[in-house]
Amino acid sequence: MDRRRFLQLGAASPLLLGLGSVAGEARAQQRQPGNAGSSGNGKARNVIFLVSDGMSMGTLTAADQYLYWRDERHTHWIDLYMQRDLPVHRGLMDMSSRNAMVTDSAAAAASWGCGHRVNNGSVNIGPDDEEYPTILQIAREAGKATGLVTTTTVTHATPAGFGANVASRGQEADIAKQYYERGYDVILGGGNHYFDPERRDDGEDLYGKFEQAGHEIIRDRDALLALSDSDVGVLGTFSNWHLPYEIDRLHNEQSKQSVPTLAEMTDAALQRLNRIGDGFVLQVEGGRVDHAAHGNDLGGLLFDQLAFDDAIGVALAFQQEHPDTLVIITTDHGNANPGFQAGPDLGHGQFEKLSRFKGTGLTHIVPELNEEVSRDTIRDRFKETLELEISDRETDMIYDFVRGDYELPYHRTNHIRSLVAKVVANHLDFNWIGRSHSADYVELAATGPGAEQVGPFTKNTDLHQFMLKALGIEAVQEAANRRGVRVFA
Amino acid sequence: MDRRRFLQLGAASPLLLGLGSVAGEARAQQRQPGNAGSSGNGKARNVIFLVSDGMSMGTLTAADQYLYWRDERHTHWIDLYMQRDLPVHRGLMDMSSRNAMVTDSAAAAASWGCGHRVNNGSVNIGPDDEEYPTILQIAREAGKATGLVTTTTVTHATPAGFGANVASRGQEADIAKQYYERGYDVILGGGNHYFDPERRDDGEDLYGKFEQAGHEIIRDRDALLALSDSDVGVLGTFSNWHLPYEIDRLHNEQSKQSVPTLAEMTDAALQRLNRIGDGFVLQVEGGRVDHAAHGNDLGGLLFDQLAFDDAIGVALAFQQEHPDTLVIITTDHGNANPGFQAGPDLGHGQFEKLSRFKGTGLTHIVPELNEEVSRDTIRDRFKETLELEISDRETDMIYDFVRGDYELPYHRTNHIRSLVAKVVANHLDFNWIGRSHSADYVELAATGPGAEQVGPFTKNTDLHQFMLKALGIEAVQEAANRRGVRVFA
Repeated sequence: MDRRRFLQLGAASPLLLGLGSVAGEARAQQRQPGNAGSSGNGKARNVIFLVSDGMSMGTLTAADQYLYWRDERHTHWIDLYMQRDLPVHRGLMDMSSRNAMVTDSAAAAASWGCGHRVNNGSVNIGPDDEEYPTILQIAREAGKATGLVTTTTVTHATPAGFGANVASRGQEADIAKQYYERGYDVILGGGNHYFDPERRDDGEDLYGKFEQAGHEIIRDRDALLALSDSDVGVLGTFSNWHLPYEIDRLHNEQSKQSVPTLAEMTDAALQRLNRIGDGFVLQVEGGRVDHAAHGNDLGGLLFDQLAFDDAIGVALAFQQEHPDTLVIITTDHGNANPGFQAGPDLGHGQFEKLSRFKGTGLTHIVPELNEEVSRDTIRDRFKETLELEISDRETDMIYDFVRGDYELPYHRTNHIRSLVAKVVANHLDFNWIGRSHSADYVELAATGPGAEQVGPFTKNTDLHQFMLKALGIEAVQEAANRRGVRVFA
Repeated sequence: MDRRRFLQLGAASPLLLGLGSVAGEARAQQRQPGNAGSSGNGKARNVIFLVSDGMSMGTLTAADQYLYWRDERHTHWIDLYMQRDLPVHRGLMDMSSRNAMVTDSAAAAASWGCGHRVNNGSVNIGPDDEEYPTILQIAREAGKATGLVTTTTVTHATPAGFGANVASRGQEADIAKQYYERGYDVILGGGNHYFDPERRDDGEDLYGKFEQAGHEIIRDRDALLALSDSDVGVLGTFSNWHLPYEIDRLHNEQSKQSVPTLAEMTDAALQRLNRIGDGFVLQVEGGRVDHAAHGNDLGGLLFDQLAFDDAIGVALAFQQEHPDTLVIITTDHGNANPGFQAGPDLGHGQFEKLSRFKGTGLTHIVPELNEEVSRDTIRDRFKETLELEISDRETDMIYDFVRGDYELPYHRTNHIRSLVAKVVANHLDFNWIGRSHSADYVELAATGPGAEQVGPFTKNTDLHQFMLKALGIEAVQEAANRRGVRVFA
């Protein structure tokens, strides 16, 4: 049955009955191809939701300033703000969760995904175990194609917040299964571990099931770039776990060959989604910005933020060709509030040094720093990875720290990763307040039909309604409310 | 001569001839009283420019979240964003100076004050010693009253950026003299040192001169609150140097009696300015937010930010009664990027602890921490000032630090103030990246006529033009340009 017609008839849908639909069913329903069915009523046909995970204001700024220094151009994000002729709406957003001022990524993504504040760590599950319908389910009911693209495992908290219901974000194997049961169309990122029967605890062959339901399965960058013009779903996992940090990927020939960039995945997803449904909802996550912030790694942070920005460029280019696309760009919370401070060289020497980094300290320095490490090895790792000549004082501090003879005063930074970061800070004047999420209100931008709903200050849960309203599918939810379906409460 | 008529006649003004006018002359010119002469053409009659000095995003957020916890209301700043019926325009602003990515307060205020990026440390002076006309001079030429209100010395970099021209911000004695020569109407804050003949190196009696020119001179809070309904200028200094931090003022009976709040000064300035000229330009600075950030002092930061927010409340209330007022709210740069992070109690325990602070550590703890200090004294100072029971480990770190037996790894935080802050962070999970300004793009908001000029991304110098255009006095500058007057270059 035609999906939209199905809704017009007012029949009880699988979603409204609390049942999942499956990928095979999705294909069987023969949703409208991408270029038909544009609503033409000023509504958005598509939503692209881009989230840089754990991006403090200093992260956005540093990426823009570094790029301007290097390439004499602004990031796509800031450039969007400078285009006075392209209406962009922006504001701050309060990301508090149901039980905490400082949210985690699961509750954050769920606030957008289902329109409810849930407890930290849970994914679209309410305090009385309610399963809130998610934006991807609702969109799918309305005939939209659905997609998730990320640099983390595709089953990580942020993508899951748009499409899954689990009590704990750690249930990634369950989340993978829900993606299949709910028939999402395009899923690209890391996380082979949760699809491969040889690696899943339950031995289930999710690749096989997705394939049976009509999805293409791809496992490397070449396959992604060679994707056909077909209109079937795609499941692509390019790593067992998270994808590598962008700066590590760039400096590793094998990763460079096998792992696509976030921008490449975004482009592939958009092309495919645009051929599948009557419009689409796609989430794109720069997921490892958050990991780099947790690990206090400047190179990891900046180059992943820039890779995220490239994905913004792809999304905005798509929007130029398809103006009936609402593009939302934001982050789910600050993390460690990093930033450049005034240094002796007033800024550009700091960028010069950053441009010579060859990888993350998290990958190439920290793992070496155990209690056996020599002073020479400490010096060498900094030199080889970051081209920094560290001082005897700095070397001694690390040497002593790993042997338990030195500690940092703030217990949350009393960690080798923070100490490495503070040695880097001595050379680049870029530092962090800690190793976890911050309470800061976050940056939110939107452009395209429905963007005008974004005001100077937005509550996280409002974004859910904004998306539904922009898509003109709030009726789906309202109808459910009228019938008193609990899940929409 | 009527000031506006003077301009209409096109006569060479003192400013355009490069001469200063004096306060006495200002009185003699009998500018229009406050309630006459409203332009009524959609232009702004008044500009109130409020600047929290050195406010990172985490400072704005923490003040709002703490206030909501304590009083169940948002800050005026955030509340303004929530009023969807009151058009507020906001965006990010790039505050870079002429020679640095990270600006200082002098170059920052000068960028708004004269519309040029100058080198850090200089006040409205160009690279070839050009003296750029300042917003207060230009406004005064156009018949506007002029005012400066701050919690620092009134001659500090930020107020000076609106009204003075000096090669170095340290020339506060010269700045005070320029204020007199240029005839600014209302000047309220700290800085007796630069006006008192007994304290000035040149022995000049600036109080006497201001008085002779018709200004009232006031020296304490009572005098401020008892200000008459007259229309003469006011010079008020309430301290030899900066005013105390708000949290120190609140807990010191003598300060509370003698020193007004920023909101009280703002209110007095608005009432008086509104009676003096044909509209006015007023800068209000929460100047010690920056000092608290430099000193990594949470109590100093938060309560001065809240005091600044009270001044916003006063400004917005004035605007409600006088809608032809452009209100601009911003900061000149981030500082130390502080923020609350996820703590064990998910937020509110942190606020509970903060609510028990009785003063700044900068005033009540740090001065005690010399190499003679005992462990008992260290513990007692934290207990008495902040009601924190610090651990033996924390006590030992401070004890060792002041004796040179312990150091922090990042050289910019290898300072007793930072160590005190990190002990506080152990209890409240509020920390800082360093002790200086950050490169972050900053928050900018505007409401009232002319506010629509503020887009999603603003270059600092543009604000100068926005103010002139809103006031409808860009013609003053354009005329000067046509005549090739160097100072307007």
